[in-house]
Amino acid sequence: MDENVPGLPSLLRFRPETAGPLSALAEALLRGPSPLGRGERELIAAYVSELNGCRFCASSHGACAAAQLPGGSSLVRQVHADPAAAPVSDKLRALLAVAAAVRRGGREVGAEHIAAARDAGATDVEIHDTVLIAAAFCMFNRYVDGLGTSAPEDPAAYAQMAERLIVHGYGSAAAPR
Amino acid sequence: MDENVPGLPSLLRFRPETAGPLSALAEALLRGPSPLGRGERELIAAYVSELNGCRFCASSHGACAAAQLPGGSSLVRQVHADPAAAPVSDKLRALLAVAAAVRRGGREVGAEHIAAARDAGATDVEIHDTVLIAAAFCMFNRYVDGLGTSAPEDPAAYAQMAERLIVHGYGSAAAPR
Repeated sequence: MDENVPGLPSLLRFRPETAGPLSALAEALLRGPSPLGRGERELIAAYVSELNGCRFCASSHGACAAAQLPGGSSLVRQVHADPAAAPVSDKLRALLAVAAAVRRGGREVGAEHIAAARDAGATDVEIHDTVLIAAAFCMFNRYVDGLGTSAPEDPAAYAQMAERLIVHGYGSAAAPR
Repeated sequence: MDENVPGLPSLLRFRPETAGPLSALAEALLRGPSPLGRGERELIAAYVSELNGCRFCASSHGACAAAQLPGGSSLVRQVHADPAAAPVSDKLRALLAVAAAVRRGGREVGAEHIAAARDAGATDVEIHDTVLIAAAFCMFNRYVDGLGTSAPEDPAAYAQMAERLIVHGYGSAAAPR
């Protein structure tokens, strides 16, 4: 793999056969039609990645969330530190708890998590999308770290990636830049 | 969701926007061009699903593996019980150990897992495909169980699903039958 390309993009170039479906999945999940905003979906992705200790995904999706939510990078840091105390809506807080349960395992999601999300106003599609985003990042995080890809140290690198992703989408993730 | 449709297919029908990329990913991973055989790839998927306690995925991909490997369902049971003692090649045994590490977490994959796979003759593409299959089933298992889909009790139901998947592929998974 190209050592000069970090994280997921290096893997997408190494194996183009799987890059197409993976990029299409990220695009549908994080930017396609959904009752959840793009910033909210990036925040769920970043939060799960942070819990999984995946620096590349937590930083890149954290930067995408920060750029698309009013609270910016301060809000992302607060959610990473303690979602129960972070200034997000009750609905998003309940969905973050669903995402944390999914991260632990599919069977860790209890009726109480779903009921709390519904009580806070989440629809079936919002709950579905939260579960699938959390599950998908349990895949992306393992893919990126399991194959030992590199992750930039400089936060500015992630801000640049986010800018590109927000304009061009995830179909551009494997393309040379 | 349609209570009469079990497992992943019920979710694919509920949210067609994400069904396309998910089906395309399963097709590329388990049936597309790869130095690993289709039966071997299904076995890796079934093994990870068994470790994750996902009955629907372990049973359906176990049935696909059994139908495409000489050892049949007896081999699948032996791998689920103890891959170290199961009658598989040294290369596949080392790749199953890589898959088990990926399941625990991306950062659980150590240089020793990769070195053991290489020593047993695995190529970079075989290691890549094993890591991505294991990671993808950490997603599929969480998706299927996190949204509480049903799983048939009868092994014959999985054998029928496998027959259909082996002939028609994963693009057919969301289609009415």
